[in-house]
Amino acid sequence: MAYKWSVREIPAPSYELAKPVQDRLNRLTKPPGSLGRLESLAVDLAVATGRERPRVRPAGVLVMAADHGVARSGVSAYPPEVTAQMVRNFLRGGAAINVLSRQAGAAVWVVDVGVAVDVDPETGEPDPPEVAGSPAVFRVKKVRPGTADMTEGPAMSREEAERALEAGWEAATEMIQAGIRLVALGEMGIGNTTASAAVAAALTGWPEGDLVGLGTGVDPLRRQRKLQAVRRALALNRPNPGDPVDVLAKVGGLEIAALAGATLACASRRVPVLMDGYIATVGALAAAHVDAAVVPYLFASHRSVEPGHGRILRWLGREPLFDLDMRLGEGTGAVLALSIMEAAVRILDEMATFDEAGVSDAEG
Amino acid sequence: MAYKWSVREIPAPSYELAKPVQDRLNRLTKPPGSLGRLESLAVDLAVATGRERPRVRPAGVLVMAADHGVARSGVSAYPPEVTAQMVRNFLRGGAAINVLSRQAGAAVWVVDVGVAVDVDPETGEPDPPEVAGSPAVFRVKKVRPGTADMTEGPAMSREEAERALEAGWEAATEMIQAGIRLVALGEMGIGNTTASAAVAAALTGWPEGDLVGLGTGVDPLRRQRKLQAVRRALALNRPNPGDPVDVLAKVGGLEIAALAGATLACASRRVPVLMDGYIATVGALAAAHVDAAVVPYLFASHRSVEPGHGRILRWLGREPLFDLDMRLGEGTGAVLALSIMEAAVRILDEMATFDEAGVSDAEG
Repeated sequence: MAYKWSVREIPAPSYELAKPVQDRLNRLTKPPGSLGRLESLAVDLAVATGRERPRVRPAGVLVMAADHGVARSGVSAYPPEVTAQMVRNFLRGGAAINVLSRQAGAAVWVVDVGVAVDVDPETGEPDPPEVAGSPAVFRVKKVRPGTADMTEGPAMSREEAERALEAGWEAATEMIQAGIRLVALGEMGIGNTTASAAVAAALTGWPEGDLVGLGTGVDPLRRQRKLQAVRRALALNRPNPGDPVDVLAKVGGLEIAALAGATLACASRRVPVLMDGYIATVGALAAAHVDAAVVPYLFASHRSVEPGHGRILRWLGREPLFDLDMRLGEGTGAVLALSIMEAAVRILDEMATFDEAGVSDAEG
Repeated sequence: MAYKWSVREIPAPSYELAKPVQDRLNRLTKPPGSLGRLESLAVDLAVATGRERPRVRPAGVLVMAADHGVARSGVSAYPPEVTAQMVRNFLRGGAAINVLSRQAGAAVWVVDVGVAVDVDPETGEPDPPEVAGSPAVFRVKKVRPGTADMTEGPAMSREEAERALEAGWEAATEMIQAGIRLVALGEMGIGNTTASAAVAAALTGWPEGDLVGLGTGVDPLRRQRKLQAVRRALALNRPNPGDPVDVLAKVGGLEIAALAGATLACASRRVPVLMDGYIATVGALAAAHVDAAVVPYLFASHRSVEPGHGRILRWLGREPLFDLDMRLGEGTGAVLALSIMEAAVRILDEMATFDEAGVSDAEG
């Protein structure tokens, strides 16, 4: 049986829509181009979705959760059990991603692709997702209870990485089938900036030192430990830069592979993917190495504090909408950017043209 | 009779709230500081409003509209009649500010403080503002039908500038009395980037060339004409940099003075003022020259394309939340930033603490 992500077909974007959409933007009652990035976003969304009037609602954030063997090496300020505790917090609605999603009107989908302990769904709200006010939809697609320590051997087998990609594909597909028109990528996993740095270094060949930051809050000494862990993992496992699945298996994470799978699923259905911070963007980067055709479907939300993030966004040719010094993850930056994505769509939909409003256009 | 803005009292901010609010932010289920600017915004809003749990809803945008005699000198890409046409567009709900305000759930208040022709209120929605779905509240507080050409003499008399300040004070006060908890500043006035540059140059002493940009869309040749108009107006009228009312009268605009008056009114009631682009920020700058006590009540939304904008924001010590290459005005950037302001408040209100959620805190 072939994995669905491995036999995907990703349609070409509708570049032919760029001109008619820009023409319409120029007829709206404002000087041409004066809404700046909102206008280029509207064009990019039309090109990606293949619709002259693209939609981004309803939107949902997909929070992939998993644990990391490397977290036991002291690379994080938090103990590994926080991953499961935060998943419970997501299911009860008390985390930042819940608060921002409630405000933005976005559905929260949490997927356990490899949390070390089982999260009792009873502690969260039950399905179905349709229940209004439910803090989150929860799916268990556990490939294994956390990765092995990549500084001592491969984080997981190739087969496990493939299954994690498939878990992400399936989760995103279910969201899209439930009607979601834009998927924001989020994650939770103590230790996952370390794994993300290793994946990014393996895929891009950039120096590890440029890709290892302070994470959600480590001191410079612990950052040094993270950097050593990344270097040791790469030297020991020798992932093949030309084989993204090999990279994800040897030095990645279950949630990072799942984010890559979700990205492939969204692109195959022309659903825009709104990347969050470092880890989510590394997931999208891995997807782009599996199939470069995903890139036109990727949208950047914010630039996080993590130093490697901006560089990977540039590699992907994606400019963030804002930089608010965020470094939390969970999808928080992406969900905060939703209102800007929606604004771009609404401008196109709802503004009057010069003709309709009886407003004089610019003098020749 | 003394004008209300001239006998104002602006309370001191509650700096003593900064620590308890930051303490609460640190107990929420996220690494300390990991929500970046959202956290500092929450603190700043608490300090400004004097409430440990500040509110920014309901929010409204105050769009001050007026014409400029200097617009007849070809400083804009648009003919002067566009000011009145756009006011009608605001009242019918077809402009960018209507679209973005609808999305953000913000009320639009439009005030004619000096549009050259009378806008027939019949063309727009009638009062009262309480009517759901009404595109805008409209108030006529016309001081005069547009300013005189400042390149030939003072734009208006000192008395007229004082009355425009009072019109702004009154409009903002009415909004606040109607329940508005955050006022976004917007404007409409063909030619008003030219007047704003003149006001900013007079108040700060910075070179005119640094303060004159391309406005909403002029070519470099027309920018040169703008620069000459600003220089001529300053040389001819010699506004007194130590007397902001003199500056507003000689080289300002009716809507710029009204924005200054609105800023003073908001600060006197501890209502946060969310500045939009160049013109709105120059209005706030003029208010800060009338009374520096307004500054803690000022919040920057975006940095516009206009080159002087970022410099004035730095002068005011206010960092924008994003830079999306916008240059439309109307309050569009400010209203787009509302969701970020609200996110800051909601984080403080709605997130679980480590204790409440049973999540382990960072290792000592």
